[in-house]
Amino acid sequence: MNINFIAVGKVKESYFREACEEYRKRLSAFAAVKVTEVEPAFLPQNPNKTQINQALSKEAEKLRAFAKGFKIAMCIEGKTISSEELSEKIRDISEISFIIGSSYGIDDNFKRECDMRLSMSPMTFPHTLARVMVFEQVYRAVSINANLKYHK
Amino acid sequence: MNINFIAVGKVKESYFREACEEYRKRLSAFAAVKVTEVEPAFLPQNPNKTQINQALSKEAEKLRAFAKGFKIAMCIEGKTISSEELSEKIRDISEISFIIGSSYGIDDNFKRECDMRLSMSPMTFPHTLARVMVFEQVYRAVSINANLKYHK
Repeated sequence: MNINFIAVGKVKESYFREACEEYRKRLSAFAAVKVTEVEPAFLPQNPNKTQINQALSKEAEKLRAFAKGFKIAMCIEGKTISSEELSEKIRDISEISFIIGSSYGIDDNFKRECDMRLSMSPMTFPHTLARVMVFEQVYRAVSINANLKYHK
Repeated sequence: MNINFIAVGKVKESYFREACEEYRKRLSAFAAVKVTEVEPAFLPQNPNKTQINQALSKEAEKLRAFAKGFKIAMCIEGKTISSEELSEKIRDISEISFIIGSSYGIDDNFKRECDMRLSMSPMTFPHTLARVMVFEQVYRAVSINANLKYHK
């Protein structure tokens, strides 16, 4: 199984970087994991809607180039499912890409091109914490499918 | 405003401890924040339902002693709300307690005694990551109410 995480920007908080790295490492025992960070598009201070949309569109071009297989766009308005449902969803997929946008999210057109829009919460989390949450959920999903004790 | 976080057990992952500490520090600029960690009840390996319920009941006694003001029990089956709704919810409360259980959750009776049962996600997260998520959401809620730029 190939699992790709494609995200906009770096994780600036060292504690969230470490957490992602820990789950990436654990996941690597079960799948070929690839983490790609694409460069965020430049935005001025207090950008307007047009500037934000242009930036998202530029970032989408880069995300598109790396997104392979079954594409899941992480977004607050997406479908909410349980960890068990996520594990079923990804069970028989040979390649899957989780796409995590910037703090402004993901370009609308690119979201529509994806195979699924997934929301972890109706609450807004910083995109770097959201990245930790996605990594953990994917590790949990794989653990459930591998009958590991991790998830209980 | 008094904000209490009352949790079962310590956060074993250093990166999640650091993340909690960062949000606690930031929150302290806006509220009197108190973090209390109560001792988890002893459980054997592979505990059965009765043993788990007894442990939860023991932990609830300790949680009860610290839970003051408006009590919010964090649990997967609770109400899901947006960050904005949480900020409105806590706006005019002088003392609030967020209760975060162990990996087995919180005692049913104690949950019913609380003023609100709140869920951040239908997905299951480790209780230590959930703690980071709660701290962040409370900081976000307070930022929204203080008109800070943090939440955008």
